[in-house]
Amino acid sequence: MTHPSVIRPADHASYSAEKMGKATIFESPRILVGLNAFEPRQEHALHAHAGQDKVYHVLEGEGVFLLEGRELAMTPGDLLVAPEGVPHGVRNTGDSRLLVLAILAPAPTRKSR
Amino acid sequence: MTHPSVIRPADHASYSAEKMGKATIFESPRILVGLNAFEPRQEHALHAHAGQDKVYHVLEGEGVFLLEGRELAMTPGDLLVAPEGVPHGVRNTGDSRLLVLAILAPAPTRKSR
Repeated sequence: MTHPSVIRPADHASYSAEKMGKATIFESPRILVGLNAFEPRQEHALHAHAGQDKVYHVLEGEGVFLLEGRELAMTPGDLLVAPEGVPHGVRNTGDSRLLVLAILAPAPTRKSR
Repeated sequence: MTHPSVIRPADHASYSAEKMGKATIFESPRILVGLNAFEPRQEHALHAHAGQDKVYHVLEGEGVFLLEGRELAMTPGDLLVAPEGVPHGVRNTGDSRLLVLAILAPAPTRKSR
């Protein structure tokens, strides 16, 4: 990718009726820039990444960040960082789709995905 | 940072009349999540990072991404990835402030900043 171009993240969103949809915007060994797309009431259960920091940035919709013993309301523009080892997740609590930019550094290896 | 909290990026913006303002939202060896804040007509000149990928996400304002021999218009919500070694920059071409989320992976070492 030697010719960067401007990306409208929502154009890359992939929703699924079955479970949270994932899409990749950019990937290198250093970083994965992806999208987590949630239909109403879908969630990504509490989980943690060893050795990887996760950055969430809310693009569209309403929901909550899941943390250990806590839920934090999210609205578009909100950002949350889950440092390596810190359990985190997302739940769409609204009646509309929820789209969240999800960045992982370093990128997961194929095996660990 | 074992107790993640929800961040409104714009609350952390640091503008300067002299030059582009920088602020750090989160930093680890793996990632630097920062803000580049531009008063009208300020710019961050074309530069490149060896071994680091840069992700820009436009939060507020209007401007252009600077690339080698090209300028690409930016508007809020736009995202651009400059992979390691690819020259990039930002110019505020509007009459309002321009705020851009700037993510580097891995984080720069103190020496290289």
